[in-house]
Amino acid sequence: MTIQTLTVVGVGLLGGSLGLAAKQRGLARRVLGVGRQRDSLEFAREIGAIDEGFLTVEPAVGEADVVVICTPVDQIARQVVEAGRACPSGSLLTDVGSTKAGIVKAVDGQLPAGVAFVGSHPLAGSEKRGPGHANARLFERRLTVITPTARTEPAALERTRAFWEAFGCRVHLMSPEDHDRALALTSHLPHLTASALAGILPPEVFELTATGFRDTTRVAAGDPELWTAIFAQNRQAVLESLELLEGRLAELRRALENSDNAEMDRLLTQAKKVRDALGS
Amino acid sequence: MTIQTLTVVGVGLLGGSLGLAAKQRGLARRVLGVGRQRDSLEFAREIGAIDEGFLTVEPAVGEADVVVICTPVDQIARQVVEAGRACPSGSLLTDVGSTKAGIVKAVDGQLPAGVAFVGSHPLAGSEKRGPGHANARLFERRLTVITPTARTEPAALERTRAFWEAFGCRVHLMSPEDHDRALALTSHLPHLTASALAGILPPEVFELTATGFRDTTRVAAGDPELWTAIFAQNRQAVLESLELLEGRLAELRRALENSDNAEMDRLLTQAKKVRDALGS
Repeated sequence: MTIQTLTVVGVGLLGGSLGLAAKQRGLARRVLGVGRQRDSLEFAREIGAIDEGFLTVEPAVGEADVVVICTPVDQIARQVVEAGRACPSGSLLTDVGSTKAGIVKAVDGQLPAGVAFVGSHPLAGSEKRGPGHANARLFERRLTVITPTARTEPAALERTRAFWEAFGCRVHLMSPEDHDRALALTSHLPHLTASALAGILPPEVFELTATGFRDTTRVAAGDPELWTAIFAQNRQAVLESLELLEGRLAELRRALENSDNAEMDRLLTQAKKVRDALGS
Repeated sequence: MTIQTLTVVGVGLLGGSLGLAAKQRGLARRVLGVGRQRDSLEFAREIGAIDEGFLTVEPAVGEADVVVICTPVDQIARQVVEAGRACPSGSLLTDVGSTKAGIVKAVDGQLPAGVAFVGSHPLAGSEKRGPGHANARLFERRLTVITPTARTEPAALERTRAFWEAFGCRVHLMSPEDHDRALALTSHLPHLTASALAGILPPEVFELTATGFRDTTRVAAGDPELWTAIFAQNRQAVLESLELLEGRLAELRRALENSDNAEMDRLLTQAKKVRDALGS
Protein backbone atom coordinates (compact mmCIF):
# COMPACT_ATOMS: atom_id res chain seq x y z
CA MET A 1 0.00 0.00 0.00
CA THR A 2 1.40 3.34 -1.03
CA ILE A 3 -0.71 6.40 -0.41
CA GLN A 4 -0.04 9.56 -2.37
CA THR A 5 -1.69 11.88 0.15
CA LEU A 6 -2.68 10.89 3.66
CA THR A 7 -4.56 13.52 5.64
CA VAL A 8 -4.69 13.31 9.41
CA VAL A 9 -7.36 15.46 11.06
CA GLY A 10 -6.32 16.07 14.67
CA VAL A 11 -2.56 15.91 15.14
CA GLY A 12 -2.36 14.82 18.78
CA LEU A 13 -0.97 11.64 20.28
CA LEU A 14 -2.76 9.33 17.84
CA GLY A 15 -2.72 11.57 14.75
CA GLY A 16 0.91 12.51 15.34
CA SER A 17 1.90 8.88 15.80
CA LEU A 18 0.04 7.91 12.64
CA GLY A 19 1.85 10.57 10.64
CA LEU A 20 5.23 9.60 12.05
CA ALA A 21 4.64 5.93 11.35
CA ALA A 22 3.34 6.62 7.82
CA LYS A 23 6.49 8.58 7.02
CA GLN A 24 8.91 6.19 8.65
CA ARG A 25 7.33 3.13 7.05
CA GLY A 26 7.13 4.84 3.65
CA LEU A 27 3.37 4.29 3.52
CA ALA A 28 2.51 7.78 2.35
CA ARG A 29 4.37 10.15 0.02
CA ARG A 30 2.80 13.14 1.69
CA VAL A 31 1.11 13.54 5.07
CA LEU A 32 -1.10 16.57 5.62
CA GLY A 33 -2.28 17.51 9.09
CA VAL A 34 -5.29 19.48 10.27
CA GLY A 35 -5.27 21.11 13.69
CA ARG A 36 -6.66 24.06 15.59
CA GLN A 37 -3.34 25.47 16.74
CA ARG A 38 -0.64 26.75 14.43
CA ASP A 39 2.09 26.03 17.01
CA SER A 40 1.04 22.46 17.40
CA LEU A 41 0.99 21.90 13.63
CA GLU A 42 4.41 23.48 13.33
CA PHE A 43 5.70 21.19 16.07
CA ALA A 44 4.22 18.17 14.27
CA ARG A 45 5.98 19.26 11.09
CA GLU A 46 9.29 19.69 12.87
CA ILE A 47 9.21 16.18 14.30
CA GLY A 48 8.33 14.77 10.88
CA ALA A 49 4.77 13.71 11.68
CA ILE A 50 3.30 15.83 8.87
CA ASP A 51 4.62 17.59 5.78
CA GLU A 52 2.19 20.46 5.92
CA GLY A 53 -0.36 21.79 8.40
CA PHE A 54 -3.84 23.28 7.87
CA LEU A 55 -6.23 25.01 10.24
CA THR A 56 -9.33 23.76 8.42
CA VAL A 57 -10.35 20.44 6.89
CA GLU A 58 -11.36 21.45 3.38
CA PRO A 59 -8.02 22.54 1.87
CA ALA A 60 -6.25 19.55 3.45
CA VAL A 61 -8.37 16.83 1.87
CA GLY A 62 -8.73 18.01 -1.76
CA GLU A 63 -6.15 15.48 -2.95
CA ALA A 64 -6.40 12.96 -0.14
CA ASP A 65 -6.46 9.24 -0.88
CA VAL A 66 -7.01 8.40 2.77
CA VAL A 67 -8.29 10.69 5.54
CA VAL A 68 -8.05 9.60 9.17
CA ILE A 69 -10.02 11.57 11.77
CA CYS A 70 -8.13 11.58 15.06
CA THR A 71 -10.14 14.14 17.03
CA PRO A 72 -12.28 13.67 20.18
CA VAL A 73 -15.23 11.31 19.59
CA ASP A 74 -17.84 14.06 19.74
CA GLN A 75 -16.23 15.80 16.74
CA ILE A 76 -15.51 12.82 14.51
CA ALA A 77 -18.85 12.37 12.71
CA ARG A 78 -19.06 16.05 11.79
CA GLN A 79 -15.51 16.04 10.48
CA VAL A 80 -16.00 12.84 8.50
CA VAL A 81 -18.92 14.48 6.72
CA GLU A 82 -16.99 17.71 6.20
CA ALA A 83 -13.98 15.84 4.81
CA GLY A 84 -16.21 13.56 2.72
CA ARG A 85 -17.73 16.52 0.92
CA ALA A 86 -14.34 18.06 0.08
CA CYS A 87 -12.24 15.05 -0.84
CA PRO A 88 -11.98 13.45 -4.28
CA SER A 89 -14.10 10.51 -5.38
CA GLY A 90 -12.36 7.27 -4.41
CA SER A 91 -11.15 8.58 -1.07
CA LEU A 92 -11.30 6.35 1.98
CA LEU A 93 -12.24 7.96 5.30
CA THR A 94 -11.69 6.31 8.64
CA ASP A 95 -11.14 7.34 12.26
CA VAL A 96 -9.54 6.24 15.52
CA GLY A 97 -12.42 6.96 17.90
CA SER A 98 -12.96 4.94 21.08
CA THR A 99 -16.69 4.72 20.40
CA LYS A 100 -18.23 3.61 17.13
CA ALA A 101 -22.02 3.19 17.02
CA GLY A 102 -22.93 6.87 17.31
CA ILE A 103 -20.29 7.94 14.80
CA VAL A 104 -21.11 5.29 12.22
CA LYS A 105 -24.82 6.07 12.50
CA ALA A 106 -24.33 9.83 12.21
CA VAL A 107 -22.23 9.48 9.07
CA ASP A 108 -24.51 6.96 7.38
CA GLY A 109 -26.04 8.38 4.20
CA GLN A 110 -24.21 11.70 4.56
CA LEU A 111 -21.33 11.07 2.13
CA PRO A 112 -21.21 11.63 -1.62
CA ALA A 113 -21.11 8.57 -3.88
CA GLY A 114 -17.56 7.31 -4.39
CA VAL A 115 -16.42 8.32 -0.91
CA ALA A 116 -16.41 5.61 1.77
CA PHE A 117 -16.24 5.81 5.54
CA VAL A 118 -15.35 2.72 7.60
CA GLY A 119 -15.07 3.13 11.37
CA SER A 120 -11.86 2.02 13.09
CA HIS A 121 -10.52 1.92 16.60
CA PRO A 122 -6.87 1.06 17.10
CA LEU A 123 -6.48 -0.09 20.73
CA ALA A 124 -3.43 2.05 21.27
CA GLY A 125 -2.96 5.21 23.21
CA SER A 126 -2.11 6.42 26.64
CA GLU A 127 -3.20 8.84 29.30
CA LYS A 128 -0.87 11.36 27.65
CA ARG A 129 -2.00 13.83 25.05
CA GLY A 130 -0.50 15.86 22.22
CA PRO A 131 2.00 15.36 19.39
CA GLY A 132 4.84 15.69 21.92
CA HIS A 133 4.07 12.11 22.94
CA ALA A 134 3.74 10.84 19.38
CA ASN A 135 5.53 7.57 18.75
CA ALA A 136 6.04 5.93 15.36
CA ARG A 137 5.67 2.49 16.94
CA LEU A 138 2.43 3.20 18.82
CA PHE A 139 0.38 0.96 16.53
CA GLU A 140 2.80 -1.93 16.17
CA ARG A 141 1.33 -5.28 17.20
CA ARG A 142 -1.80 -3.52 18.49
CA LEU A 143 -5.30 -4.63 17.67
CA THR A 144 -7.41 -2.37 15.48
CA VAL A 145 -11.13 -3.01 15.57
CA ILE A 146 -12.85 -2.18 12.27
CA THR A 147 -16.62 -1.79 12.42
CA PRO A 148 -18.28 -2.36 9.06
CA THR A 149 -22.05 -2.32 8.67
CA ALA A 150 -24.38 -3.99 6.19
CA ARG A 151 -23.82 -0.99 3.90
CA THR A 152 -20.02 -1.07 3.97
CA GLU A 153 -18.58 -1.89 0.55
CA PRO A 154 -16.24 -4.88 0.66
CA ALA A 155 -13.54 -2.98 -1.22
CA ALA A 156 -13.60 -0.14 1.32
CA LEU A 157 -13.41 -2.63 4.15
CA GLU A 158 -10.42 -4.34 2.54
CA ARG A 159 -8.65 -1.01 2.03
CA THR A 160 -9.25 -0.14 5.69
CA ARG A 161 -7.86 -3.50 6.76
CA ALA A 162 -4.80 -3.11 4.53
CA PHE A 163 -4.28 0.41 5.88
CA TRP A 164 -4.07 -0.69 9.52
CA GLU A 165 -2.06 -3.80 8.72
CA ALA A 166 0.47 -1.57 7.00
CA PHE A 167 1.02 0.13 10.38
CA GLY A 168 1.71 -3.24 12.00
CA CYS A 169 -1.74 -3.73 13.52
CA ARG A 170 -3.72 -6.92 13.83
CA VAL A 171 -7.29 -6.37 12.69
CA HIS A 172 -10.58 -7.53 14.20
CA LEU A 173 -14.02 -6.97 12.63
CA MET A 174 -17.07 -6.25 14.79
CA SER A 175 -20.35 -4.41 14.46
CA PRO A 176 -20.22 -0.86 15.88
CA GLU A 177 -22.67 -1.88 18.64
CA ASP A 178 -20.68 -4.96 19.66
CA HIS A 179 -17.55 -2.83 19.69
CA ASP A 180 -19.15 -0.30 22.01
CA ARG A 181 -20.48 -2.94 24.41
CA ALA A 182 -17.08 -4.66 24.52
CA LEU A 183 -15.12 -1.45 24.99
CA ALA A 184 -17.47 -0.35 27.76
CA LEU A 185 -16.17 -3.36 29.72
CA THR A 186 -12.53 -3.32 28.62
CA SER A 187 -11.86 0.41 28.61
CA HIS A 188 -14.65 2.81 29.56
CA LEU A 189 -15.68 1.15 32.83
CA PRO A 190 -12.04 0.67 33.93
CA HIS A 191 -11.54 4.37 33.29
CA LEU A 192 -14.58 5.28 35.35
CA THR A 193 -13.42 3.01 38.18
CA ALA A 194 -9.85 4.28 38.13
CA SER A 195 -11.20 7.79 38.27
CA ALA A 196 -13.42 6.92 41.24
CA LEU A 197 -10.50 5.34 43.11
CA ALA A 198 -8.29 8.36 42.52
CA GLY A 199 -11.12 10.78 43.21
CA ILE A 200 -11.83 9.53 46.73
CA LEU A 201 -8.20 9.55 47.86
CA PRO A 202 -7.62 12.15 50.58
CA PRO A 203 -4.35 14.14 50.27
CA GLU A 204 -3.04 12.89 53.61
CA VAL A 205 -2.57 9.38 52.21
CA PHE A 206 -1.02 10.34 48.85
CA GLU A 207 2.38 9.37 50.25
CA LEU A 208 1.11 5.88 51.04
CA THR A 209 0.38 4.93 47.44
CA ALA A 210 2.68 2.39 45.83
CA THR A 211 2.86 0.69 42.44
CA GLY A 212 -0.48 -1.08 42.95
CA PHE A 213 -2.42 2.15 43.35
CA ARG A 214 -0.50 3.81 40.56
CA ASP A 215 -1.16 1.00 38.09
CA THR A 216 -4.80 0.72 39.07
CA THR A 217 -5.46 4.44 38.61
CA ARG A 218 -3.00 5.35 35.81
CA VAL A 219 -5.72 5.96 33.21
CA ALA A 220 -7.44 8.46 35.53
CA ALA A 221 -4.80 10.97 34.39
CA GLY A 222 -6.43 10.92 30.95
CA ASP A 223 -7.98 14.08 29.55
CA PRO A 224 -11.38 14.74 31.20
CA GLU A 225 -12.79 16.40 28.09
CA LEU A 226 -11.95 13.45 25.84
CA TRP A 227 -13.38 11.00 28.36
CA THR A 228 -16.55 12.97 29.03
CA ALA A 229 -17.19 12.77 25.28
CA ILE A 230 -16.50 9.02 25.23
CA PHE A 231 -18.89 8.41 28.13
CA ALA A 232 -21.56 10.55 26.50
CA GLN A 233 -21.23 8.61 23.23
CA ASN A 234 -21.37 5.22 24.91
CA ARG A 235 -23.73 6.06 27.75
CA GLN A 236 -26.02 3.03 27.67
CA ALA A 237 -23.30 0.38 27.40
CA VAL A 238 -21.25 2.08 30.13
CA LEU A 239 -24.30 2.13 32.41
CA GLU A 240 -24.85 -1.59 31.77
CA SER A 241 -21.20 -2.35 32.52
CA LEU A 242 -21.35 -0.25 35.66
CA GLU A 243 -24.32 -2.30 36.80
CA LEU A 244 -22.29 -5.49 36.38
CA LEU A 245 -19.45 -3.97 38.40
CA GLU A 246 -21.80 -2.79 41.13
CA GLY A 247 -23.17 -6.33 41.33
CA ARG A 248 -19.72 -7.80 41.76
CA LEU A 249 -18.75 -5.18 44.34
CA ALA A 250 -21.93 -6.06 46.25
CA GLU A 251 -20.87 -9.73 46.27
CA LEU A 252 -17.44 -8.74 47.58
CA ARG A 253 -19.10 -6.52 50.19
CA ARG A 254 -21.28 -9.38 51.40
CA ALA A 255 -18.26 -11.68 51.68
CA LEU A 256 -16.55 -9.01 53.82
CA GLU A 257 -19.62 -8.30 55.94
CA ASN A 258 -20.17 -11.98 56.60
CA SER A 259 -16.45 -12.67 57.16
CA ASP A 260 -16.96 -15.35 54.50
CA ASN A 261 -13.36 -16.10 53.59
CA ALA A 262 -14.28 -19.05 51.38
CA GLU A 263 -16.51 -16.81 49.25
CA MET A 264 -13.88 -14.05 49.16
CA ASP A 265 -11.27 -16.56 48.05
CA ARG A 266 -13.64 -17.90 45.37
CA LEU A 267 -14.29 -14.41 43.95
CA LEU A 268 -10.61 -13.43 44.00
CA THR A 269 -9.59 -16.74 42.44
CA GLN A 270 -12.09 -16.42 39.58
CA ALA A 271 -10.83 -12.89 38.84
CA LYS A 272 -7.20 -13.95 39.06
CA LYS A 273 -7.85 -16.62 36.40
CA VAL A 274 -9.21 -13.93 34.07
CA ARG A 275 -6.29 -11.61 34.74
CA ASP A 276 -3.74 -14.40 34.32
CA ALA A 277 -5.32 -15.30 30.98
CA LEU A 278 -4.66 -11.78 29.69
CA GLY A 279 -0.90 -11.93 30.26
CA SER A 280 1.20 -9.01 31.45
CA MET B 1 24.11 -1.26 61.14
CA THR B 2 25.71 -4.70 61.05
CA ILE B 3 23.61 -7.64 62.12
CA GLN B 4 25.30 -10.86 63.14
CA THR B 5 22.29 -13.05 62.50
CA LEU B 6 19.19 -11.97 60.59
CA THR B 7 16.36 -14.49 60.50
CA VAL B 8 13.69 -14.21 57.83
CA VAL B 9 10.54 -16.21 58.49
CA GLY B 10 8.80 -16.84 55.16
CA VAL B 11 11.22 -16.83 52.24
CA GLY B 12 8.93 -15.70 49.42
CA LEU B 13 9.06 -12.57 47.29
CA LEU B 14 9.52 -10.21 50.26
CA GLY B 15 11.56 -12.48 52.54
CA GLY B 16 13.76 -13.59 49.67
CA SER B 17 14.32 -10.00 48.55
CA LEU B 18 15.16 -9.01 52.12
CA GLY B 19 17.75 -11.78 52.42
CA LEU B 20 19.28 -10.92 49.03
CA ALA B 21 19.48 -7.23 49.88
CA ALA B 22 20.92 -7.91 53.35
CA LYS B 23 23.69 -10.03 51.84
CA GLN B 24 24.44 -7.73 48.93
CA ARG B 25 24.50 -4.63 51.12
CA GLY B 26 26.61 -6.37 53.76
CA LEU B 27 24.00 -5.65 56.42
CA ALA B 28 24.02 -9.13 57.94
CA ARG B 29 26.85 -11.59 58.43
CA ARG B 30 24.43 -14.49 58.35
CA VAL B 31 20.88 -14.78 57.03
CA LEU B 32 18.76 -17.70 58.21
CA GLY B 33 15.49 -18.54 56.50
CA VAL B 34 12.41 -20.34 57.74
CA GLY B 35 10.01 -21.93 55.27
CA ARG B 36 7.58 -24.78 54.91
CA GLN B 37 9.14 -26.32 51.83
CA ARG B 38 12.61 -27.76 51.70
CA ASP B 39 12.88 -27.13 47.93
CA SER B 40 12.01 -23.52 48.27
CA LEU B 41 14.57 -22.99 51.05
CA GLU B 42 17.21 -24.74 48.98
CA PHE B 43 16.36 -22.48 46.04
CA ALA B 44 16.65 -19.41 48.30
CA ARG B 45 20.06 -20.65 49.46
CA GLU B 46 21.22 -21.20 45.89
CA ILE B 47 20.34 -17.66 44.80
CA GLY B 48 22.11 -16.25 47.87
CA ALA B 49 19.01 -15.01 49.71
CA ILE B 50 19.76 -17.11 52.82
CA ASP B 51 22.77 -18.97 54.21
CA GLU B 52 20.78 -21.73 55.83
CA GLY B 53 17.18 -22.91 55.80
CA PHE B 54 14.95 -24.24 58.59
CA LEU B 55 11.51 -25.82 58.53
CA THR B 56 10.54 -24.44 61.95
CA VAL B 57 11.00 -21.09 63.67
CA GLU B 58 12.61 -22.10 66.97
CA PRO B 59 16.04 -23.38 65.83
CA ALA B 60 16.37 -20.46 63.37
CA VAL B 61 16.03 -17.67 65.92
CA GLY B 62 18.19 -18.88 68.84
CA GLU B 63 20.99 -16.47 67.90
CA ALA B 64 19.00 -13.91 65.95
CA ASP B 65 19.62 -10.20 66.45
CA VAL B 66 16.75 -9.30 64.15
CA VAL B 67 13.83 -11.48 63.06
CA VAL B 68 11.57 -10.36 60.22
CA ILE B 69 8.29 -12.21 59.72
CA CYS B 70 7.41 -12.26 56.01
CA THR B 71 4.48 -14.69 56.01
CA PRO B 72 0.80 -14.05 55.15
CA VAL B 73 -0.84 -11.59 57.54
CA ASP B 74 -2.97 -14.22 59.28
CA GLN B 75 0.17 -16.07 60.42
CA ILE B 76 2.35 -13.16 61.48
CA ALA B 77 1.19 -12.58 65.08
CA ARG B 78 1.50 -16.27 65.98
CA GLN B 79 4.98 -16.45 64.50
CA VAL B 80 6.11 -13.24 66.20
CA VAL B 81 5.13 -14.77 69.55
CA GLU B 82 6.75 -18.10 68.67
CA ALA B 83 9.97 -16.38 67.59
CA GLY B 84 9.89 -14.03 70.59
CA ARG B 85 9.89 -16.93 73.02
CA ALA B 86 12.85 -18.65 71.33
CA CYS B 87 15.14 -15.73 70.50
CA PRO B 88 17.77 -14.21 72.81
CA SER B 89 17.11 -11.19 74.99
CA GLY B 90 17.86 -8.03 73.05
CA SER B 91 16.38 -9.34 69.79
CA LEU B 92 14.26 -7.08 67.63
CA LEU B 93 11.26 -8.57 65.87
CA THR B 94 9.44 -6.91 63.02
CA ASP B 95 7.32 -7.92 60.04
CA VAL B 96 6.29 -6.86 56.54
CA GLY B 97 2.53 -7.42 56.79
CA SER B 98 0.06 -5.31 54.79
CA THR B 99 -2.18 -4.92 57.85
CA LYS B 100 -1.02 -3.80 61.24
CA ALA B 101 -3.68 -3.21 63.92
CA GLY B 102 -4.70 -6.85 64.41
CA ILE B 103 -1.12 -8.06 64.44
CA VAL B 104 0.16 -5.42 66.84
CA LYS B 105 -2.75 -6.02 69.19
CA ALA B 106 -2.37 -9.80 69.13
CA VAL B 107 1.33 -9.59 69.97
CA ASP B 108 0.94 -6.99 72.74
CA GLY B 109 1.94 -8.38 76.14
CA GLN B 110 2.89 -11.78 74.69
CA LEU B 111 6.67 -11.32 74.47
CA PRO B 112 9.30 -11.93 77.16
CA ALA B 113 11.05 -8.92 78.66
CA GLY B 114 14.04 -7.85 76.59
CA VAL B 115 12.43 -8.84 73.28
CA ALA B 116 10.73 -6.11 71.26
CA PHE B 117 8.26 -6.24 68.39
CA VAL B 118 7.64 -3.19 66.22
CA GLY B 119 5.24 -3.55 63.29
CA SER B 120 6.44 -2.58 59.82
CA HIS B 121 5.03 -2.47 56.33
CA PRO B 122 7.39 -1.78 53.45
CA LEU B 123 5.25 -0.59 50.52
CA ALA B 124 7.00 -2.86 48.08
CA GLY B 125 5.89 -6.00 46.40
CA SER B 126 4.14 -7.19 43.33
CA GLU B 127 1.41 -9.50 42.17
CA LYS B 128 4.10 -12.16 41.85
CA ARG B 129 4.94 -14.63 44.57
CA GLY B 130 7.87 -16.77 45.65
CA PRO B 131 11.66 -16.43 46.00
CA GLY B 132 11.99 -16.87 42.23
CA HIS B 133 10.89 -13.24 41.93
CA ALA B 134 13.15 -11.99 44.73
CA ASN B 135 15.03 -8.82 43.89
CA ALA B 136 17.79 -7.26 45.99
CA ARG B 137 16.58 -3.78 45.01
CA LEU B 138 12.90 -4.31 45.87
CA PHE B 139 13.06 -2.03 48.92
CA GLU B 140 15.20 0.75 47.46
CA ARG B 141 13.57 4.17 47.63
CA ARG B 142 10.34 2.59 48.89
CA LEU B 143 8.39 3.84 51.85
CA THR B 144 8.26 1.64 54.94
CA VAL B 145 5.52 2.46 57.41
CA ILE B 146 6.47 1.66 61.01
CA THR B 147 3.60 1.45 63.47
CA PRO B 148 4.73 2.05 67.06
CA THR B 149 2.24 2.17 69.92
CA ALA B 150 2.33 3.92 73.28
CA ARG B 151 4.17 0.87 74.65
CA THR B 152 6.90 0.77 72.00
CA GLU B 153 10.32 1.49 73.49
CA PRO B 154 12.08 4.37 71.74
CA ALA B 155 15.25 2.29 71.30
CA ALA B 156 13.35 -0.50 69.55
CA LEU B 157 11.64 2.02 67.31
CA GLU B 158 14.99 3.56 66.40
CA ARG B 159 16.47 0.14 65.62
CA THR B 160 13.51 -0.62 63.37
CA ARG B 161 13.94 2.68 61.58
CA ALA B 162 17.67 2.11 61.13
CA PHE B 163 16.97 -1.41 59.86
CA TRP B 164 14.69 -0.26 57.03
CA GLU B 165 16.83 2.74 56.18
CA ALA B 166 19.76 0.37 55.74
CA PHE B 167 17.77 -1.30 52.94
CA GLY B 168 17.32 2.05 51.22
CA CYS B 169 13.78 2.73 52.45
CA ARG B 170 12.26 5.99 53.52
CA VAL B 171 10.43 5.61 56.81
CA HIS B 172 7.05 6.94 57.92
CA LEU B 173 5.58 6.49 61.42
CA MET B 174 1.85 5.95 61.95
CA SER B 175 -0.40 4.27 64.47
CA PRO B 176 -1.44 0.75 63.42
CA GLU B 177 -5.05 1.91 63.09
CA ASP B 178 -4.16 4.92 60.91
CA HIS B 179 -2.01 2.65 58.77
CA ASP B 180 -4.86 0.23 58.23
CA ARG B 181 -7.34 2.96 57.33
CA ALA B 182 -4.88 4.54 54.89
CA LEU B 183 -3.90 1.24 53.27
CA ALA B 184 -7.56 0.30 52.88
CA LEU B 185 -7.80 3.27 50.50
CA THR B 186 -4.40 3.06 48.81
CA SER B 187 -4.08 -0.70 48.43
CA HIS B 188 -6.87 -2.96 49.69
CA LEU B 189 -9.79 -1.20 47.97
CA PRO B 190 -7.86 -0.86 44.67
CA HIS B 191 -7.21 -4.60 44.87
CA LEU B 192 -10.89 -5.33 45.45
CA THR B 193 -11.86 -3.06 42.55
CA ALA B 194 -9.27 -4.49 40.16
CA SER B 195 -10.51 -7.94 41.06
CA ALA B 196 -14.12 -6.91 40.39
CA LEU B 197 -13.20 -5.43 36.98
CA ALA B 198 -11.31 -8.56 35.97
CA GLY B 199 -13.96 -10.85 37.44
CA ILE B 200 -16.82 -9.49 35.34
CA LEU B 201 -14.94 -9.64 32.02
CA PRO B 202 -16.49 -12.23 29.68
CA PRO B 203 -14.00 -14.37 27.71
CA GLU B 204 -15.26 -13.12 24.34
CA VAL B 205 -13.80 -9.66 25.00
CA PHE B 206 -10.41 -10.75 26.42
CA GLU B 207 -8.84 -9.91 23.05
CA LEU B 208 -10.15 -6.35 23.27
CA THR B 209 -8.19 -5.44 26.40
CA ALA B 210 -5.29 -3.04 25.95
CA THR B 211 -2.77 -1.41 28.28
CA GLY B 212 -5.48 0.52 30.15
CA PHE B 213 -7.33 -2.61 31.24
CA ARG B 214 -4.08 -4.40 32.00
CA ASP B 215 -2.75 -1.62 34.20
CA THR B 216 -6.06 -1.15 35.95
CA THR B 217 -6.39 -4.84 36.83
CA ARG B 218 -2.75 -5.90 37.21
CA VAL B 219 -2.97 -6.45 40.97
CA ALA B 220 -5.93 -8.83 40.50
CA ALA B 221 -3.33 -11.47 39.58
CA GLY B 222 -2.17 -11.41 43.22
CA ASP B 223 -2.49 -14.51 45.36
CA PRO B 224 -6.13 -14.97 46.48
CA GLU B 225 -5.13 -16.64 49.76
CA LEU B 226 -2.83 -13.78 50.77
CA TRP B 227 -5.48 -11.22 49.87
CA THR B 228 -8.34 -13.02 51.56
CA ALA B 229 -6.25 -12.86 54.75
CA ILE B 230 -5.54 -9.14 54.25
CA PHE B 231 -9.24 -8.36 53.75
CA ALA B 232 -10.16 -10.43 56.80
CA GLN B 233 -7.60 -8.57 58.94
CA ASN B 234 -8.71 -5.13 57.73
CA ARG B 235 -12.41 -5.82 57.29
CA GLN B 236 -13.87 -2.70 58.85
CA ALA B 237 -11.59 -0.18 57.14
CA VAL B 238 -12.04 -1.92 53.77
CA LEU B 239 -15.83 -1.79 54.17
CA GLU B 240 -15.62 1.93 54.96
CA SER B 241 -13.43 2.54 51.91
CA LEU B 242 -15.78 0.50 49.76
CA GLU B 243 -18.64 2.70 50.90
CA LEU B 244 -16.71 5.77 49.77
CA LEU B 245 -16.10 4.18 46.38
CA GLU B 246 -19.73 3.15 46.01
CA GLY B 247 -20.71 6.75 46.74
CA ARG B 248 -18.41 8.07 44.04
CA LEU B 249 -19.59 5.46 41.53
CA ALA B 250 -23.17 6.51 42.29
CA GLU B 251 -22.23 10.14 41.49
CA LEU B 252 -20.68 9.03 38.21
CA ARG B 253 -23.77 6.92 37.48
CA ARG B 254 -26.05 9.91 38.04
CA ALA B 255 -23.94 12.07 35.74
CA LEU B 256 -24.27 9.36 33.05
CA GLU B 257 -27.98 8.83 33.60
CA ASN B 258 -28.67 12.55 33.44
CA SER B 259 -26.30 13.07 30.48
CA ASP B 260 -24.75 15.73 32.72
CA ASN B 261 -21.46 16.31 30.91
CA ALA B 262 -20.49 19.24 33.11
CA GLU B 263 -20.76 17.08 36.23
CA MET B 264 -18.91 14.19 34.55
CA ASP B 265 -16.13 16.56 33.54
CA ARG B 266 -15.97 17.95 37.08
CA LEU B 267 -15.63 14.48 38.62
CA LEU B 268 -13.03 13.33 36.08
CA THR B 269 -11.07 16.58 36.48
CA GLN B 270 -10.95 16.31 40.28
CA ALA B 271 -9.69 12.71 40.02
CA LYS B 272 -7.14 13.62 37.35
CA LYS B 273 -5.69 16.25 39.70
CA VAL B 274 -5.22 13.60 42.37
CA ARG B 275 -3.65 11.15 39.94
CA ASP B 276 -1.37 13.83 38.44
CA ALA B 277 -0.20 14.73 41.95
CA LEU B 278 1.00 11.16 42.51
CA GLY B 279 3.35 11.16 39.51
CA SER B 280 3.92 8.17 37.27
